[in-house]
Amino acid sequence: MIGYSIIVNFNQNLPQIDLPPDMIHLGIGQPSSYLLPINEMEKAAAHSLSKESRFFLAYGEASGNSTFRETLAQFLSSQYPNKVDPGQLLITNGNSQALDFICTLFARPGDTVLVEEPSYFLALKIFADHKLNLVSIPVDDNGLIISALEEKLETLEPSFLYTIPTYHNPASVTLTSKRRQDLVRICAQKDLLVVADEVYHFLNYSDEPPSPVGTWNNQCPLISLGSFSKILAPGLRLGWMHTRSDLVEKIVQSGLLVSGGGLNPFTSEIVNSFIFLGFLAPHIQRLKTVYRKRIDIFCNQLKESLPDQIEFKIPKGGYFVWLKFPEDIDTNSFRKKAQKQHVDFYPGMLFSHKKELKNYMRLSFAFYDQPVLIEGAHRFGKVISSYLS
Amino acid sequence: MIGYSIIVNFNQNLPQIDLPPDMIHLGIGQPSSYLLPINEMEKAAAHSLSKESRFFLAYGEASGNSTFRETLAQFLSSQYPNKVDPGQLLITNGNSQALDFICTLFARPGDTVLVEEPSYFLALKIFADHKLNLVSIPVDDNGLIISALEEKLETLEPSFLYTIPTYHNPASVTLTSKRRQDLVRICAQKDLLVVADEVYHFLNYSDEPPSPVGTWNNQCPLISLGSFSKILAPGLRLGWMHTRSDLVEKIVQSGLLVSGGGLNPFTSEIVNSFIFLGFLAPHIQRLKTVYRKRIDIFCNQLKESLPDQIEFKIPKGGYFVWLKFPEDIDTNSFRKKAQKQHVDFYPGMLFSHKKELKNYMRLSFAFYDQPVLIEGAHRFGKVISSYLS
Repeated sequence: MIGYSIIVNFNQNLPQIDLPPDMIHLGIGQPSSYLLPINEMEKAAAHSLSKESRFFLAYGEASGNSTFRETLAQFLSSQYPNKVDPGQLLITNGNSQALDFICTLFARPGDTVLVEEPSYFLALKIFADHKLNLVSIPVDDNGLIISALEEKLETLEPSFLYTIPTYHNPASVTLTSKRRQDLVRICAQKDLLVVADEVYHFLNYSDEPPSPVGTWNNQCPLISLGSFSKILAPGLRLGWMHTRSDLVEKIVQSGLLVSGGGLNPFTSEIVNSFIFLGFLAPHIQRLKTVYRKRIDIFCNQLKESLPDQIEFKIPKGGYFVWLKFPEDIDTNSFRKKAQKQHVDFYPGMLFSHKKELKNYMRLSFAFYDQPVLIEGAHRFGKVISSYLS
Repeated sequence: MIGYSIIVNFNQNLPQIDLPPDMIHLGIGQPSSYLLPINEMEKAAAHSLSKESRFFLAYGEASGNSTFRETLAQFLSSQYPNKVDPGQLLITNGNSQALDFICTLFARPGDTVLVEEPSYFLALKIFADHKLNLVSIPVDDNGLIISALEEKLETLEPSFLYTIPTYHNPASVTLTSKRRQDLVRICAQKDLLVVADEVYHFLNYSDEPPSPVGTWNNQCPLISLGSFSKILAPGLRLGWMHTRSDLVEKIVQSGLLVSGGGLNPFTSEIVNSFIFLGFLAPHIQRLKTVYRKRIDIFCNQLKESLPDQIEFKIPKGGYFVWLKFPEDIDTNSFRKKAQKQHVDFYPGMLFSHKKELKNYMRLSFAFYDQPVLIEGAHRFGKVISSYLS
């Protein structure tokens, strides 16, 4: 058995996470501390700040530093099937801020917004802060169920649809190419704004994912959200919107951007150097190698430790394993018991705005390294087995 | 006469500002490029990023990195009459983001918000994005007129009051100590949230300003907004709220912060090093020395170049000179004429949500160095003299 306290000390010291010292919280969807590339960031900062130009210390262009948008467009073009136009990019403080901003600009309290069931639980909280009325559409193994969307659109006129098309959080499913095309066609017909959270797109561990939904942004009202949180470092609070130029223009006219200028010019310039110096692509490769190995180890251990009636699929990308328990099980009912055994998770209910999905649970392999994942799965298996028996 | 094009090249290259090459825009309220301390920022970044710890690359504490809040509290305590508690600080992406966030959390579309007449024009735009109903209270030489506030509060129940108590933008006036106390007493009685934009507090050029409104945050619902935009660099998008601990707690529970964590952990850590290395206080001193000299030169030249019927006071702090023209003059009516003479300004109307204050105008000495200010005042005087004659 692994000496857990050593591993914890190695992995932790992350201030947003306040855990008892011997707890393994398998729900946490954040990268391990040691996967944050501080040495490359040091070089990138030295590269940026040794220049004569200091424009990135001033208020920046409302849509983001133009050099950075060029660099980002080149990077995205190298990863996407189509060329990305820097004029279709708007730099954000990460997807949480982008979602908050979209709520302010594209919805009013009381408006209906469509979300997936399940969905990212903290996005649901942002929508709640904006007093939006949420209506959910179920997700199956192929992502958002398009016929269910069509049905809702017969009677509702939502302000937007929030979807996580690729390596879904928490369901770990990916919207198929066919469904992507259908989604775009329907939203074009209905003039429905699609807000596609594509934050896990680059973290594929087996085959290539379908083209990002952002690729279709000329065909329907669509904002694709990307972020450096999963592919570089969450503490940067740096992301982007990829959307039609006319939507970029609309957003640029907002008070927040006219007043404050670009949302993160200083950090943008340092990340610009990070990409310019060639650090980003190899870093993503490294993440994929690490996560791929963790999935193997973790899912094997889960299969070994968990009773057969618990179902899950091996994730093909992203951060999450989505466990399905028998219908009559409420995973929240044994959470305290698990915590007493120093293991924790996020119950399915969190990811449902209707507080359903009680027989599901989200686990993640992003935060802990292999030995801790094995130990966590082991502890977890003991708790579940004793609960179900 | 100064070779203007050389000066412009020296001063400019700031991306948010898109001016014709020979234009002197005396309205711009941004620091000159050469006042942005890039060399010290380079040292600060090297200091932060050479450490072993990489917590600031992860999601940060929702209220901001605790080390940074400690450092900031110490800095503020050294500048304020009272000790500042780090538990009363919440790190923001600058005051524009903070205002946007306050609108989301403390108001709903259609709510009434009290603003000053005049007020910061881009704050008015942020409030408009949130569809707030603005009601204004006039400002005189002693700041917000408290009796007018009392009168409004007899019939209205606003969500909050937005005020710029010290070195007002654009009016350049400062709320007296007596009025600060009255303001706090009345807002405590009425349970009215005060949002005090104290961004110019540190930029005093003659005597000390009264205690910041934030000092009274235990006596009424109050959020004091501070920022590094005016005392370090706007491109950092870094600021703070100084407020009661229970309001910090409320804000920390928002979806945006629970999801994204602290708003700017990476930049916070670098600015933490900037302060730790002793760069901030001398930098502010340098700014004050530069701005003080500019005010002397610029206001002398304005007095010399402008007709007598135009009134203004010498600024005691902040960024702005607020010019009052005779009642029947609409300063916007000669703006195009001025632009043709390669000089520009912001007409008073911009700073009034009712589009009044037509006989006022905002100028600033923050952006251009002395020779350009002299040339600008000279050009400006010619335009005005020919218009008024």
